[in-house]
Amino acid sequence: MTDVHSIDPRTGEVLAVVGPETTDEQVDAACDRAAVAYRGIRERDRRWRADLLRAMADALEARRDAIVATADAETALGPARLGGELTRTCYQLRFFAGVVDEGGFLEATIDHAGPTPMGPRPDLRRMLVATGPVAVFGASNFPLAFSVPGGDTASALAAGCPVVVKAHESHPATSRLCADLLRAAAAAAGAPEGTVELVFGRAAGARLVRHPAITAVGFTGSQRGGEALMALIAERPAPIPFYGELGSVNPMVVTEAAAGERAAAIGAGFADSFTLGAGQFCTKPGLAFVPSGPAGDAVVAATAAAVRDKPAAVMLNAGIAAAFGRGVEELAAQAGTARVAAGRPEAPGIAAELLEVDEADLTDRMLEETFGPVAVVVRYRDPVSLATALRRLPSSLTATLHTGPGEPALEPAAQRALEERAGRIVYNGYPTGVAVSWAQHHGGGWPASNSLHTSVGATAIRRFLRPLTWQDAPEAALPAELRDATTGLPRRIDGVLIPA
Amino acid sequence: MTDVHSIDPRTGEVLAVVGPETTDEQVDAACDRAAVAYRGIRERDRRWRADLLRAMADALEARRDAIVATADAETALGPARLGGELTRTCYQLRFFAGVVDEGGFLEATIDHAGPTPMGPRPDLRRMLVATGPVAVFGASNFPLAFSVPGGDTASALAAGCPVVVKAHESHPATSRLCADLLRAAAAAAGAPEGTVELVFGRAAGARLVRHPAITAVGFTGSQRGGEALMALIAERPAPIPFYGELGSVNPMVVTEAAAGERAAAIGAGFADSFTLGAGQFCTKPGLAFVPSGPAGDAVVAATAAAVRDKPAAVMLNAGIAAAFGRGVEELAAQAGTARVAAGRPEAPGIAAELLEVDEADLTDRMLEETFGPVAVVVRYRDPVSLATALRRLPSSLTATLHTGPGEPALEPAAQRALEERAGRIVYNGYPTGVAVSWAQHHGGGWPASNSLHTSVGATAIRRFLRPLTWQDAPEAALPAELRDATTGLPRRIDGVLIPA
Repeated sequence: MTDVHSIDPRTGEVLAVVGPETTDEQVDAACDRAAVAYRGIRERDRRWRADLLRAMADALEARRDAIVATADAETALGPARLGGELTRTCYQLRFFAGVVDEGGFLEATIDHAGPTPMGPRPDLRRMLVATGPVAVFGASNFPLAFSVPGGDTASALAAGCPVVVKAHESHPATSRLCADLLRAAAAAAGAPEGTVELVFGRAAGARLVRHPAITAVGFTGSQRGGEALMALIAERPAPIPFYGELGSVNPMVVTEAAAGERAAAIGAGFADSFTLGAGQFCTKPGLAFVPSGPAGDAVVAATAAAVRDKPAAVMLNAGIAAAFGRGVEELAAQAGTARVAAGRPEAPGIAAELLEVDEADLTDRMLEETFGPVAVVVRYRDPVSLATALRRLPSSLTATLHTGPGEPALEPAAQRALEERAGRIVYNGYPTGVAVSWAQHHGGGWPASNSLHTSVGATAIRRFLRPLTWQDAPEAALPAELRDATTGLPRRIDGVLIPA
Repeated sequence: MTDVHSIDPRTGEVLAVVGPETTDEQVDAACDRAAVAYRGIRERDRRWRADLLRAMADALEARRDAIVATADAETALGPARLGGELTRTCYQLRFFAGVVDEGGFLEATIDHAGPTPMGPRPDLRRMLVATGPVAVFGASNFPLAFSVPGGDTASALAAGCPVVVKAHESHPATSRLCADLLRAAAAAAGAPEGTVELVFGRAAGARLVRHPAITAVGFTGSQRGGEALMALIAERPAPIPFYGELGSVNPMVVTEAAAGERAAAIGAGFADSFTLGAGQFCTKPGLAFVPSGPAGDAVVAATAAAVRDKPAAVMLNAGIAAAFGRGVEELAAQAGTARVAAGRPEAPGIAAELLEVDEADLTDRMLEETFGPVAVVVRYRDPVSLATALRRLPSSLTATLHTGPGEPALEPAAQRALEERAGRIVYNGYPTGVAVSWAQHHGGGWPASNSLHTSVGATAIRRFLRPLTWQDAPEAALPAELRDATTGLPRRIDGVLIPA
C-alpha cells in the first residue's frame, strides 16, 4: 500500500502522511455508495439541494483559517490568494444554490395535447434530471475552487448528482479536510451516505472513470492527463461524457492604436496577468501579438520592466517546477527567439520569463501552453499578417484584445479567427480573472476543452443533467416542476416562455 | 469508381444509377465549401436563417409527388406513410424556423459590471453560436424525416451550421432529389455555396467524419454503424461531438390491473405499434413485460390474434430483410422461447413475429434491438420480479407503461428502473409516434444514444451550438442579440429571465 504524502513545495519536506492510496475495492465501494445516494437525493426536492449547498459553504467558512493554512502549506500559493479562493469557493456554492432555487436550469417544458399539422399530439412534458454519480478530478492549481469543494462538485451536487472526487496529489491534506467538512455538512442536512466521496491515487482515478455507476467525469488539468482519462473512458462498454478543461495558450492581441495610446499600462497589466499565481492559471495569457515598430517596442519594454521586478515564485510541486524549466528552455531554443527579460531569481522559487519572436519565426511549440510564469511576445507586421498568424492558433479558453479609441474590433479576418478560437473574448483587460456568474463561459474548442459546455458559471450544471420527457403521464407521476398548477420557476408552456 | 444504385426492395431491380460514389477529393472539397459557407451564414441574421428553413419546406412541398414516388420506389414504405413523412419533414423545417425566430435557444445572458462578494465583476455577455460545418448521416428507415431534409439538417441549419450529408445507401435517388431541392432553395435565398452538401458511399462517410472542418456529427442508425464512426472520430487530432441515435429495445410494461381492464385494446395496440412501418422504427416496442396468469394471457392472445392478421411487409433493403430473418431465428432459439404467432407470409415480404418467454429465461440477446416487426413478450410473476428484470435492461429511447385506473405508476423500484433507463416515458399509449415539439426528447442512455441531447424537438439545436462570452466588449463588437437595447427574444439579464 502506497502512502499519500502532503509535501511542502517550498522545502520538499513531507508535512504529513494523509493516508494510504485508495484500493480498487475501496473505489468500487465509494462508487456503489454514490449510486445509492443518487436515488436518495432524487427523493428530496430542489429546495433541499439548495440548502445543502449553502450549508456546505457555511461549513467551509467556519474553518477558514485551517483550510487556508493547510492549503498554503501544500501549495505555496500564499494566504491572501487562498483566502480569496476560499471566498470564491463559498460564493460559488451559494451561487449554485441560487441557480437551483431559480429553477430555469431544469428547462421545464410543457406541450399540452392538441392538434398539429402532423396530426394530434399527446401531452409531452420535458425536464432535465440528474445523470447519476459524477467523478471529479481536482486540479493542482486551484486547491479549493477547482478541487474537492470546487465548481465541478458544486454544479454536480446542484444537479442532484453525488460526487466521487479524486484528490490531486499536490494537496491531499487540503482535499481530506474539505471533504470531511462537506461530508459533515451533508450528514447534518440529512443527505445520504455517499453524497460526497473522496479517493486518493492515480490508480484510484483510473478505476473511478471505469466504474459502471459513474455517469460523467469533470476534469481540470493537463492535456496529457485528460487524454489518458479519455482513453480509459473509451474502453468502457457504455460511453460517458468527459468534460475536460485542458491546455490553453490564451492569445492576446494589441493593436497598433492600443500600443500607441497606452503601451505602459498594457505592458504592466500583461506582466501581472501572466505571472499571477506563478503563472499557474488556465487562463494565463501565454502568447501576445504586439505590432512591430516603436509603439509595439514600448509595450515590450514596459512588459520587460515589470517582469524584471517580479519576485521569484514557488510552483505547486517539484514536478511542475521542473517542467516549467524545461518548457522555458524549449521555447528559448526556437530559432529567432530572444529572452527579453527574467524575474528575480531568489531561491527557492523560479523566475518569470518573457520571450520575443518575430511572426515569421512563430513555431508550433509556441502555440502550446507552457504552465508557469512565461509568455511569448509575437511581433506582427500588419493586420493581414496578424490574421494569418491567428489562423494557426488552436482553440483557447480566452482571447484578449487591446484596441484603440473608437476601434471596436480587429480587422474582420483577424477578429473572426479569434472568435472561432476562444470561449471568452476579453476586451481591453486581462483574462486571468474568471467571475462566477450567469453569463460566464470557461471552455472552448480543443485543446482548451473537449465539450460544448463550461466548467464555470451557472450553465456548468447542464453537464450533469439529461432530458427526460413524460408522455400523457398522470399528474401524480410527474415531478412537481412539471405539474400544471406549479409556479415558482420559469417554464415553457405550449411554446411560450413564462417567467417564474 | 463504384456506381451508386437506386434499388427497388420489392423486386431487387436496379431503378437507376444515381451517380458515382464521392471521391476523397470531392469530400474534401465539399467540406471546404461548407467551411466557407459557415462564415457566410454568420454574416446573416437570425431572421434570414428562419426564412431559409421556410423556403426549404416550401421547395419540398412543391415537389411532393416526385419525392413520395421516388422514396416509395426505393424504400417500399408506401405512399401514405411517405406522404405523412414529408408533411412531418416540412413541419419540422418550419418548426425550427419558429425556434430560430423565438430566439430563446441562444440562451442570451447579460451580466452587467458590478460588485460581487468576489470583488468587482466585468460586463459579461454570453450567447450560443454555431459550431461550424456538421456531418449528417441519413437513416435507412426515414428517407425524409431523418435523412437529407430531416431533423439533423434542420436543426444544424437553424443553428447556423452548413451540413454535409452522407446519403444512405438505401435511398440515394431520394437523397439526390431532396438535396437538389434544398440547394436550389438555398441559392434562391442567397445562401452561400456549400450550405448543403451531399456525398455518397461508405468511404465518403469515413472521410467526412475525419475532415478537420467538420465540427459535429449527427447520426441515426445501428449501434454497429455508430460505433464504427465513433472509432474514426476518436482518431482525429481534435475530438468532435458525435450525436448518435443507435439501438433501442423500448420496453413496455403492462400491469396486472391494466391487463385486467383492457387486455384486448392493449394487445391490438401493441401489435400495431411493433409492426408499424415493418417494425423499422427506432421507437418500436421490442420487449413487453406482461404479467403471468389469465389477465396477461388475454393480452398475449389479443396481440397474437392481431399479429396473425398483419400482411407481409417489404423491408427497406435485402440486407435488412436478411438480418431480420437471422434475428428472429436467434431469438426463437433462446431456451424457453415460444413462437406465439406470425403474420401473413405472402411473398415478397417478410412476416411479423411474436415470441414469448418466461422472465426466468430472459437472455441478454433479448435485451438487444432486433430491427423489424418482431417483439418478445416476457411474462413476469409479480412487481418484485418485474423490478429485477427491468434492472437488467440497457437504456432505451422510450419506456411505455400500461397502468390500471388510479394506478399512476409501477411499484417504486420498477418505476425508478424504467425512469433511469429511458429518454421518454409513455403512459397508456405506444412509443412509435415521435411528435416534433418543444418538450419532445428523443434520446437516452447508451446504447439508445451516446449524448445528453435529443435528435427530435426544439432542443436538438443545442447540439450544434457552443457558448461564447464577451467581456467588456464595446457595443459595436457584440452580436445584435447581446446589445442592451435589443428586444424580441428572451434574455437573462443580471440573473433575471426576461421574456421577449
